[in-house]
Amino acid sequence: MAAVRVTFHPDRVSTEAASGASVLEAASRAGLNLHAPCGGQGRCGKCAVRFLSGAPAPSERERHFFSEEELEEGWRLACQARLEENAEVLLPPGAVMVEHRIMVEGVGREILVEPCVRKVPLKLPAPTGDDARADLMRVLQALGPGVRPAPHPRLLQALPSALRDQDFEITATLFGDELTAVEPGDQSARVYGAAVDVGTTTVVAYLCDLATGDLLATESALNPQARLGADVISRLRIATGEEEGLARLHQAAIQVVGDLVTAAAKQAGATPKDVYEVAVVGNTCMTHLLLGIPPLGMRAVPFTPGFRFAQRVRAEELGIHIHPEAQVYVAPNIGGFVGADTVGVILASELGEGDGLRMAVDIGTNGEIVLAKDGKLYACSTAAGPAFEGARIGQGMRAAEGAIDSVEIGEDVSYHVLGGVPPSGICGSGLVDAVAGMVRCNLVDPGGRLRPAEELGSVPAGLRQRVVGEGAEARFVLASAEEAAGGEPICVTARDVRELQLAKGAILAGITMLLTRLGHEPADLEELLLAGAFGNYIRRESAIEIGLIPALPEDRVRPIGNAAGVGARLMLSSQSLRRRAEEAARRVEHIELSQEEGFYDRFAEGMALRRYE
Amino acid sequence: MAAVRVTFHPDRVSTEAASGASVLEAASRAGLNLHAPCGGQGRCGKCAVRFLSGAPAPSERERHFFSEEELEEGWRLACQARLEENAEVLLPPGAVMVEHRIMVEGVGREILVEPCVRKVPLKLPAPTGDDARADLMRVLQALGPGVRPAPHPRLLQALPSALRDQDFEITATLFGDELTAVEPGDQSARVYGAAVDVGTTTVVAYLCDLATGDLLATESALNPQARLGADVISRLRIATGEEEGLARLHQAAIQVVGDLVTAAAKQAGATPKDVYEVAVVGNTCMTHLLLGIPPLGMRAVPFTPGFRFAQRVRAEELGIHIHPEAQVYVAPNIGGFVGADTVGVILASELGEGDGLRMAVDIGTNGEIVLAKDGKLYACSTAAGPAFEGARIGQGMRAAEGAIDSVEIGEDVSYHVLGGVPPSGICGSGLVDAVAGMVRCNLVDPGGRLRPAEELGSVPAGLRQRVVGEGAEARFVLASAEEAAGGEPICVTARDVRELQLAKGAILAGITMLLTRLGHEPADLEELLLAGAFGNYIRRESAIEIGLIPALPEDRVRPIGNAAGVGARLMLSSQSLRRRAEEAARRVEHIELSQEEGFYDRFAEGMALRRYE
Repeated sequence: MAAVRVTFHPDRVSTEAASGASVLEAASRAGLNLHAPCGGQGRCGKCAVRFLSGAPAPSERERHFFSEEELEEGWRLACQARLEENAEVLLPPGAVMVEHRIMVEGVGREILVEPCVRKVPLKLPAPTGDDARADLMRVLQALGPGVRPAPHPRLLQALPSALRDQDFEITATLFGDELTAVEPGDQSARVYGAAVDVGTTTVVAYLCDLATGDLLATESALNPQARLGADVISRLRIATGEEEGLARLHQAAIQVVGDLVTAAAKQAGATPKDVYEVAVVGNTCMTHLLLGIPPLGMRAVPFTPGFRFAQRVRAEELGIHIHPEAQVYVAPNIGGFVGADTVGVILASELGEGDGLRMAVDIGTNGEIVLAKDGKLYACSTAAGPAFEGARIGQGMRAAEGAIDSVEIGEDVSYHVLGGVPPSGICGSGLVDAVAGMVRCNLVDPGGRLRPAEELGSVPAGLRQRVVGEGAEARFVLASAEEAAGGEPICVTARDVRELQLAKGAILAGITMLLTRLGHEPADLEELLLAGAFGNYIRRESAIEIGLIPALPEDRVRPIGNAAGVGARLMLSSQSLRRRAEEAARRVEHIELSQEEGFYDRFAEGMALRRYE
Repeated sequence: MAAVRVTFHPDRVSTEAASGASVLEAASRAGLNLHAPCGGQGRCGKCAVRFLSGAPAPSERERHFFSEEELEEGWRLACQARLEENAEVLLPPGAVMVEHRIMVEGVGREILVEPCVRKVPLKLPAPTGDDARADLMRVLQALGPGVRPAPHPRLLQALPSALRDQDFEITATLFGDELTAVEPGDQSARVYGAAVDVGTTTVVAYLCDLATGDLLATESALNPQARLGADVISRLRIATGEEEGLARLHQAAIQVVGDLVTAAAKQAGATPKDVYEVAVVGNTCMTHLLLGIPPLGMRAVPFTPGFRFAQRVRAEELGIHIHPEAQVYVAPNIGGFVGADTVGVILASELGEGDGLRMAVDIGTNGEIVLAKDGKLYACSTAAGPAFEGARIGQGMRAAEGAIDSVEIGEDVSYHVLGGVPPSGICGSGLVDAVAGMVRCNLVDPGGRLRPAEELGSVPAGLRQRVVGEGAEARFVLASAEEAAGGEPICVTARDVRELQLAKGAILAGITMLLTRLGHEPADLEELLLAGAFGNYIRRESAIEIGLIPALPEDRVRPIGNAAGVGARLMLSSQSLRRRAEEAARRVEHIELSQEEGFYDRFAEGMALRRYE
């Protein structure tokens, strides 16, 4: 095939390309990654470029996106226009994207930084007698076809002064193809965004430089809604049943998100006014409360959310005071109890792509489980209760300073305390370790009964003496009163074991139900991903030992950290990935476990403290 | 050609159509005018209908607008789908428009009422275990493909309660294809809009029922900006030069528009909350001030406006408190001094359509002139000064009670006073009549000189004795001190004649320059339309006699009243007409007269008080 030469302006980057290659391909060859959110399918019309010479005849698709006049001027779609001869092509401002490596829990992943918000510096000609274009038209035409002004008065109110302040040199801010703001001079380097994971318990904000994709700061705080209601169910009740309940929960969420974004911006040396977008994930209840939407349909079966697809609102309208035109993007949810956080997990784990049978489990008060089979996605949620977060456990606590977070039981007990201080309680991962060890050492039978003293003949003495009390009062001492911070021994009680059984039974039942529904057994899983903080902390062997997760070879079980937060960062940094997340959310089949036959049997079975093969 | 039978649901209206006819054509045959804003060209994708049976294969265009799933469900575009066999077609809610006659100054004109805002009543199924769709999805799917939710949180905040308040019966409000609000029950009959003409001197609001197109009330008031600056030039100066000047002018405009719309709604028995859209025309300066846009580029050549194309903003954001989601549509302007009011005139007069050479002139402080030649449009403005509005005239006044608005000069003087009271001044039309009579009777020579007493030998005595004073003090008494309200005689002074000459010279120069530029003479004009209140009041013969307008046969000169306001009403009532106005505005060639060679000569010539053939 003959070769043609193409030169890209304004930077005069030149390359050879095969005759018939698209401009998109040729640009990529020249090291220029063009903004083409639909992936070069000619569907979005966003990869507009202008031929200064050598333009091919326009295609049908191009006729759809450009006016006769624009085609005449040489405008084409980079993905559609095929190079037939040597050509000079002008790339409009902001067309080229940078490449960036995003770290996903230690694994680097190449992504193209193409955030929804872009700041484009423009040097415009001043009006003359021959060029009396309106101010707005002057800016829009410099940005190329397809850009439309935001439908609010502030843009036009600011435009005439911005243009004339620094001699028609301005910076335009675009959200997608909407021109939303202008400012005098070149301010294109100051463009930041925040990814926020609104958890029931913890809220985390990640501040990113949207020009480079760099993560600059991370801030987290307890979700202040917890003061009003500890878990999702109680917050649903408050939001739908108490006067001003929704308003209070909404305000609490807005407050913490605004505060964290502000703090992260300051930590990064930026101001809140430099933050142009906030991408939010969270469970369905959290995103509803953040947006102030009454979760009326989520109180009871069939658990209908107010919205499912992604929402985009102005931060200012929510009361989040960052850049006046900043937007809040709320990722889509999948169902009443499978939220945008799960969509974040799917995106970060690339679960929706490729073949094979893979599963991701986010273990928390509400367990979310996603199964991917040859690219098809299925999701369910299962109410595990708060045991994994240390709640309803006698001496349970969150994984914070003073928590016993891992336990080793052999001849005697050894444990690790977060922060290296005397222990003041036990958190979820410590409880799983402890119970696993207690089962292994015959202190607890697979039915979950703490064996009475008379059955402990074969148990090492060091352990036997740690069993105190009887019946409902029976308990196993992990740390003596002398070792513990509060002067009280730290124990696992018979009731704690029951709570853990309920929690892990729900998770295991969810996992196995979903697999069964698709005609699979746990052993068929090529990979089981553990998302979330808890998934990161628990020891895989302990989780397998008590049958919290199926017994798989250790190399097939992989913790992926706060994948929901990573997913939010990916959605913030890349429109393509955002679209991919939305498509994934749309095609996930949501399965309501409580409606499935046999769930409760499965749940009861799942409570047994033994390996599940 | 074979005939097929098509039945339209849900109303089960049935008709025969030729095989190969489009659904749009068949529906029209059945008396159903479908919402198809692009006029059936397959460009807008808004005429979605759903085949229950007999669907033809989808076209390429339909593939663009619908997903595979939607095509599968039978969704097609009414304008594209050709009937090949008997078919059952479901029309989505709100698809059918009503026909309505709009009165354009006494001339009825059939238009299809298809306002931008539509209220659609919906009865939805309640969620079940098999139908746990999100609340938003439930509503969107009932409205058919292509409808997207407004990107603000209020919609979703209201939705869950609205759905559950009256058993899933709601009314959806759509702006174009954007779902912006919902309310419980069927409220579809309460949907009003206002057309507003923001004049430099007077502001008029027309309240319309958007379901029927009926005009229900008209309210007008003086533009309160006049207290800050009398004319456009002084307001431009205040807006761009005085501290808080823009804010004050903006607030004054917002206040009067809000007040008039509220008053008109009350007069019509509605509440302001029932008003969903305000369509605004006005000159370019007025629309900029209404939107709070600093008219920085409009102070000097080349007179660049901030915006040219139509703007759409939320009324609430401007401080106009009607329905919380109501929008303000500001019609496009053509240039710095040819505004949206002229676009209204073009639309109302249908000047942009059909063949021939036609012209519309809006005579005011600023004269706007539009020439149409075989459908092509040319426009200019010409600074006539305020004489026609009675300003800078010794005893000039607006056309209000007490104004002499017509004058007859024969053997003596007779005049008519508005309101039938003793005269207190003279308005523009009276001045034109008076000067025309004074020229005819040789009281004034064609150069504009008030002849001194010694030259008045041939003039009837009744007139001669009305000439008093000398030189710059010379004046012609129309009403004696006894007749006049103020006890002072009402006169036309030598200076008044000069002012009128300046004003009419500017208008005539504009008219003739525009004609000359296209190689035409005034006699070629098939029609000369006089828009605006002044055009309605002046006597054509007087205007011709003094050469304010060219001497054309009387049947070719036609006053068309407040065509700008009628244009605004048409834009309010019909999306198609709104689009037509926008297209017309886009293709008008704007000619800056002061930049044209020979303008000042032409202006000087035009001052002569004689017929211009």
